[in-house]
Amino acid sequence: MIDQEPRTPTRDGVLEASRKVAEILPPTPLLPMTINGQQVWIKAECLQPVGAFKIRGAWHRLSALGEEERTAGVVAVSSGNHAQGVAWAAHRLGMAATIVMPADAPPIKLARTRELGAEIVTYDRLKENREEIAQAIAEEKGATYCHAFADPWVIEGQGSAGIEIAEQLAARGAPPVDRIIACCGGGGLTAGLALACPDAAVVPVEPEGWDDVCRSLEAGEICRVADNPPTTQCDSLQTLATSPLNFAVLRERCPFGLRVSEAEVQDAQRLAFDRLRLVLEPGGAVALAAALSGKASLDGTTVVMATGGNVDPGQFARVLEAGAR
Amino acid sequence: MIDQEPRTPTRDGVLEASRKVAEILPPTPLLPMTINGQQVWIKAECLQPVGAFKIRGAWHRLSALGEEERTAGVVAVSSGNHAQGVAWAAHRLGMAATIVMPADAPPIKLARTRELGAEIVTYDRLKENREEIAQAIAEEKGATYCHAFADPWVIEGQGSAGIEIAEQLAARGAPPVDRIIACCGGGGLTAGLALACPDAAVVPVEPEGWDDVCRSLEAGEICRVADNPPTTQCDSLQTLATSPLNFAVLRERCPFGLRVSEAEVQDAQRLAFDRLRLVLEPGGAVALAAALSGKASLDGTTVVMATGGNVDPGQFARVLEAGAR
Repeated sequence: MIDQEPRTPTRDGVLEASRKVAEILPPTPLLPMTINGQQVWIKAECLQPVGAFKIRGAWHRLSALGEEERTAGVVAVSSGNHAQGVAWAAHRLGMAATIVMPADAPPIKLARTRELGAEIVTYDRLKENREEIAQAIAEEKGATYCHAFADPWVIEGQGSAGIEIAEQLAARGAPPVDRIIACCGGGGLTAGLALACPDAAVVPVEPEGWDDVCRSLEAGEICRVADNPPTTQCDSLQTLATSPLNFAVLRERCPFGLRVSEAEVQDAQRLAFDRLRLVLEPGGAVALAAALSGKASLDGTTVVMATGGNVDPGQFARVLEAGAR
Repeated sequence: MIDQEPRTPTRDGVLEASRKVAEILPPTPLLPMTINGQQVWIKAECLQPVGAFKIRGAWHRLSALGEEERTAGVVAVSSGNHAQGVAWAAHRLGMAATIVMPADAPPIKLARTRELGAEIVTYDRLKENREEIAQAIAEEKGATYCHAFADPWVIEGQGSAGIEIAEQLAARGAPPVDRIIACCGGGGLTAGLALACPDAAVVPVEPEGWDDVCRSLEAGEICRVADNPPTTQCDSLQTLATSPLNFAVLRERCPFGLRVSEAEVQDAQRLAFDRLRLVLEPGGAVALAAALSGKASLDGTTVVMATGGNVDPGQFARVLEAGAR
């Protein structure tokens, strides 16, 4: 069911995605910011209509479907941001969307996905296999399964952010991008950015303990996260392992990944509040955390992806208050 | 000292300001949003480098000064956003800036103005006359006084946001703007927008009790706020009266103003957090509050100004938590 079309994502596909995305979504801003004395650029993907970059891949995937496939609908698995991206794109195309979401997903993500007209099927993270649930639904309905990262269209769609970055830097007369620091769950965004910007270093960032891509890059082969991974605030980055499709790109383009702590993520959320006036969810703040903590180099022309802003207000308030103490 | 150059602001001046601002600041995004079933556009001025539109007027004013005037520096009075705009522009031009700020200004605004290299002189809101303090400093130093709103360059500079709005709507193939809803302290932004967009209705919005422009529009002459105005969260809109320079534009172009309550402001801050992933300070959220509360009409092509995002984290956390209860 995954990779039902066994093609590899390409830069031409990213360029096509970029044209399609530009027709319906204005570019998200590229905001200048000084971190540790270095000027960097923040790509504010949290300002997308669904609050995350996931809308790009979902749009490229679903808009590529034929009439008959659209009628049969789409099924996706997601803790929330891919869910909203798929629901948004499906709604726009008049398609039915069924999203398999963990019962413990942030309430705000469940509510927003429902508001976008999707049907939600919840599952128990610890007891049920979400892929099996989604597969059964897709087979029953004859629907297209839209994987959150192991899909060439999704990878290419996420990569459209990289084309925007290149265009925005050129428009400002800035030198081309040397480095893009990006959050990494399954590797859809990082692989897409690597294809989009062949001359840039792409640095995947993961929460400590949810570091399957860091481990995979270190080992030279796909590794899962270690058993019993710690709890993390980064609900959007809790991926157990990347896919061969993503890793084929990442292993060629990313010498290493970076890990950030939960405290570093909160520092980054507070910095974004304070200096950018942006709301970032924990998973959307890991790249900024890597920049702020000094773990990522920032010389040359560096872009930091601020990828998502869907966070419960109570949780965000606690992050702000923890910083004031 | 105020209006030392007794010229009136003009649309040509706004266009010149727009060209100058475009050279150093990328346009702030115009984000689509649905409010009460109507599609509106949010102009996210809180994403300016200093977190508020005030950078526009300050830049237009200070960059118009000659070499000798620049050497003598600039003096301004502000509770924080104009302060940061002037400090930012002065720093960029290599000018010394002295800012007279109330001792009870939000600590975050005092700290950020200082960070931008300005010298801060505090005063007691209840006991001291800030204009006299500023005038004395300006005379002593031979410095230019940059008023927060009663200045033709400042008005024209703020109006550059209206030129951006027109260009951004045209680029998206949207109809021209019918209505701009904007926060109103002294009327610098609203007068500037009215000059920038001659075919649009401009709706000034003030906090209840700090409604001098509403009262002035109703009376047909400049009125002060009533004695003993209530406390307000909207520190950036605590202006006692507008100036003749601003009112000359507003009386021709604004049939009425709107008043919003403190609770409506907080609702708007929560909506911006939730749906736009933007941090808005109370004064920056009043236009959105007028839209959300149903007080402002939203038909046709309506733009809502989201004007500032400089808010103390503890205060913002309390707003989020009050909504969760």
